Amino acid sequence: MTPSRPLDVGALLTSAAGGDRRALARLLSAAERGGEDGRAAASLAYRSGAEADTVGITGAPGAGKSTLVDRLIAAARTGGVDQLAVLAVDPTSPFSGGAILGDRVRMQGHDLDAGVFIRSMASRGHLGGLAVAVPEAIRLFATAGTPLVIVETVGVGQVEVEVASATDTTVVVVNPKWGDSIQANKAGLLETADIFVVNKADMPGAAQSRRDLEQMLDLSTPGDWRPPILETVAATGQGVDELWGEIGRHRTYLEEAGLLVPLRRERLEREFRRVLRGRIETEIDRLSGLPHFAELDSAVVEHRLDPYTAAEQLLAHVGENGSGPGSH
Amino acid sequence: MTPSRPLDVGALLTSAAGGDRRALARLLSAAERGGEDGRAAASLAYRSGAEADTVGITGAPGAGKSTLVDRLIAAARTGGVDQLAVLAVDPTSPFSGGAILGDRVRMQGHDLDAGVFIRSMASRGHLGGLAVAVPEAIRLFATAGTPLVIVETVGVGQVEVEVASATDTTVVVVNPKWGDSIQANKAGLLETADIFVVNKADMPGAAQSRRDLEQMLDLSTPGDWRPPILETVAATGQGVDELWGEIGRHRTYLEEAGLLVPLRRERLEREFRRVLRGRIETEIDRLSGLPHFAELDSAVVEHRLDPYTAAEQLLAHVGENGSGPGSH
Repeated sequence: MTPSRPLDVGALLTSAAGGDRRALARLLSAAERGGEDGRAAASLAYRSGAEADTVGITGAPGAGKSTLVDRLIAAARTGGVDQLAVLAVDPTSPFSGGAILGDRVRMQGHDLDAGVFIRSMASRGHLGGLAVAVPEAIRLFATAGTPLVIVETVGVGQVEVEVASATDTTVVVVNPKWGDSIQANKAGLLETADIFVVNKADMPGAAQSRRDLEQMLDLSTPGDWRPPILETVAATGQGVDELWGEIGRHRTYLEEAGLLVPLRRERLEREFRRVLRGRIETEIDRLSGLPHFAELDSAVVEHRLDPYTAAEQLLAHVGENGSGPGSH
Repeated sequence: MTPSRPLDVGALLTSAAGGDRRALARLLSAAERGGEDGRAAASLAYRSGAEADTVGITGAPGAGKSTLVDRLIAAARTGGVDQLAVLAVDPTSPFSGGAILGDRVRMQGHDLDAGVFIRSMASRGHLGGLAVAVPEAIRLFATAGTPLVIVETVGVGQVEVEVASATDTTVVVVNPKWGDSIQANKAGLLETADIFVVNKADMPGAAQSRRDLEQMLDLSTPGDWRPPILETVAATGQGVDELWGEIGRHRTYLEEAGLLVPLRRERLEREFRRVLRGRIETEIDRLSGLPHFAELDSAVVEHRLDPYTAAEQLLAHVGENGSGPGSH
């Protein structure tokens, strides 16, 4: 609708792959907004087939996820990872682009590290929601040559869990507090966790938290991979190397068990369905603008027609001479 | 798909209108499930044009909503309401049909009152979700001759707020606890509240809660109706008659300001869009079973096709020789 000039997505991707961080940042912004440019960028990155390894970090606010991620960056860099990206996702915030992370990252000095790209992402209007915007961002990182993306979420709502668990390896962070582990269970984190971390393990109750988690794991359906429970003190770095080691061990397990490929296929299938759903929402908006819709709407509002029959009549117009995205 | 005999919805509605509570209960169950029978019942009730006055009661768990509703039933009955229904909505529960309410209601003796119909409702598979199932249930009550329906929600999640605010008058219940009123603001309750109730007002902090709410109202966009803030002690019945009076006053305001009709029209328009979305989702499910979908799915998963282009191609098949609900 807006007559703004579209981005030259191809050129930006080439620049990004050559190390141009501002080009990458522009592409990420486009993906976050999810408009025409975003779709074009997403399509190009998609067809490149580039994939990154992904690690999700989730847990309640205040659990120490940010500090833990900072420490993991250091562990990864020391461990020989040339390039990595962190995507900090906050579904509740309308702001993004690094504001949340600014201070924290500067403290750790990672902003001076050309091998680390840190980016925050919020709900900005992508029709498929963050559950689509995040994998698209990951794919842009991958296309630009980043082999590892850490996805950190801010809370433990449904969206956060969905986003964090759409990674190869999901790390669930809890604290040694009574009830924290039960909360983890309640939020559906137990099923999505590949690794549990009891952070702030120098505080009282760490052993109890571990026992609670072990007990919940005992009660859950056993699989080939039983999520290990690690203790860390992110503030001092204690236990972080072990966590980095477990992340690697989980990845090896996925590969050797032949699970990585089917796991990623399933994720793509889910993403396709989400994109489809978003496209349908656009279509409903388009239909709502048709004269025929106004007539049906009046009939429904005046009780002359029930909404089911009206929906049936509208359905005949789906996809019909719409100004669909085929135009780009 | 299942070869079960469809309900004779017309006969059941006639029985329900004649006072047959079991017939009404069967219709409500059908509406909750949202299948073919539910749609038939919803259509018939819709075209009858019957409408009930509706009051939504929402607030955090433990705020005392249930006790308050019990007291309101008594106030309404004393105030001359012949018939009323309570719909207790719990989006997080797969169970329904009165189990939650059983004990509580028996305590108050309303189950022996033929003028009161109490029913709980959960997420049972209605495609449009509770945001469609609840107005359909309200309409069934109205068609059966119930002039007033109180919709009580269990929590303050997005669905609860959506459901509770889709009523003529929305009552938001908070407690005299620090932060409770702020929570109400955060959950978007401030915009939807027509009346605030500080329940358990005999506990410390009631005056502070009132001040917090007044302050938030001062900061919000002023309208013709400023939500009054009432204090109640539901356990003893204190303040409940005043609340019942305010509910009546709000209704009179809506009528005199000419707002009731447009308000209800808007709600019907939103409901129509939700039904439409649900119908398109069904269509997508149908398409997912087509050989063409499997091809597209493979192409997407193998990165030969991006999900946006694939969605576009699928959309072209919507409504095409499907076994649409025209068959019922």
